[in-house]
Amino acid sequence: MDNKYFEYAFKCAEKAFSLNEVPIGAVIVKDNVIISTGYNKKESSNSVLDHAEIIAIKKAERKLNNWRLDGCELYVTLDPCSMCASAIKQSRIKTVYSALSNSDDNNLSIIESIFKGDNINPEVKLYTNLAVDKSKKLLSSFFKIQRMK
Amino acid sequence: MDNKYFEYAFKCAEKAFSLNEVPIGAVIVKDNVIISTGYNKKESSNSVLDHAEIIAIKKAERKLNNWRLDGCELYVTLDPCSMCASAIKQSRIKTVYSALSNSDDNNLSIIESIFKGDNINPEVKLYTNLAVDKSKKLLSSFFKIQRMK
Repeated sequence: MDNKYFEYAFKCAEKAFSLNEVPIGAVIVKDNVIISTGYNKKESSNSVLDHAEIIAIKKAERKLNNWRLDGCELYVTLDPCSMCASAIKQSRIKTVYSALSNSDDNNLSIIESIFKGDNINPEVKLYTNLAVDKSKKLLSSFFKIQRMK
Repeated sequence: MDNKYFEYAFKCAEKAFSLNEVPIGAVIVKDNVIISTGYNKKESSNSVLDHAEIIAIKKAERKLNNWRLDGCELYVTLDPCSMCASAIKQSRIKTVYSALSNSDDNNLSIIESIFKGDNINPEVKLYTNLAVDKSKKLLSSFFKIQRMK
């Protein structure tokens, strides 16, 4: 785990914030090099698929010309939803470093089930709550502005 | 439920088969009109995102110019994986008609958890095993050819 990748993920989240999107950012790292980044743009692109993690995965697939993102790690500013968790697992990303656990307990239990190894894909290791204050502060500022609107 | 939409979904699955992809097809219907279709092309496009259901959802979002696929139903030739199930739920598709239950019990329990209503998205109703023989036959033929290769 390297904090400099979290800093990048937060830069991505801030980009989402500036576009009026829920501020979540993601970075994919392989062999200590950032190979892709993504930020949430669900509203501006009108697609439930455009979560930060999915965008980063698609870019990484194109970069490596392979859907198997073996040896890759993902840094994200909030725990993935079940869609992103499953895409991460199917991509064979081995480790997820998350800044903040999702407050929805049901989400955590679902992503833990998804991340277990099975006969198709290996286990994904999840390390969460690694930058709680920074992520909470960013999300709270965003939702405070939304409520004022 | 209308069998003619399953026929379309199977046509999509056969298209995948002809391209050497695991034969799975999906159709999204709104107000008794097909608004989008998709077939699995994970290998040819080198992306774990390119499952039949995800492709159909993205096309439907573009067609309706909205990520909220309210009032839409999805027909699919095999139960969705957890990634697709979560995308379906977040899209607010209300009903999934599936030809065949996934043989992986763990998948069924995960998608049942995902499809439960929560404080963000409504429940998704899943009706499965509606065209078992046809779907099994298509999948078995595909995997038989793969094993011979």
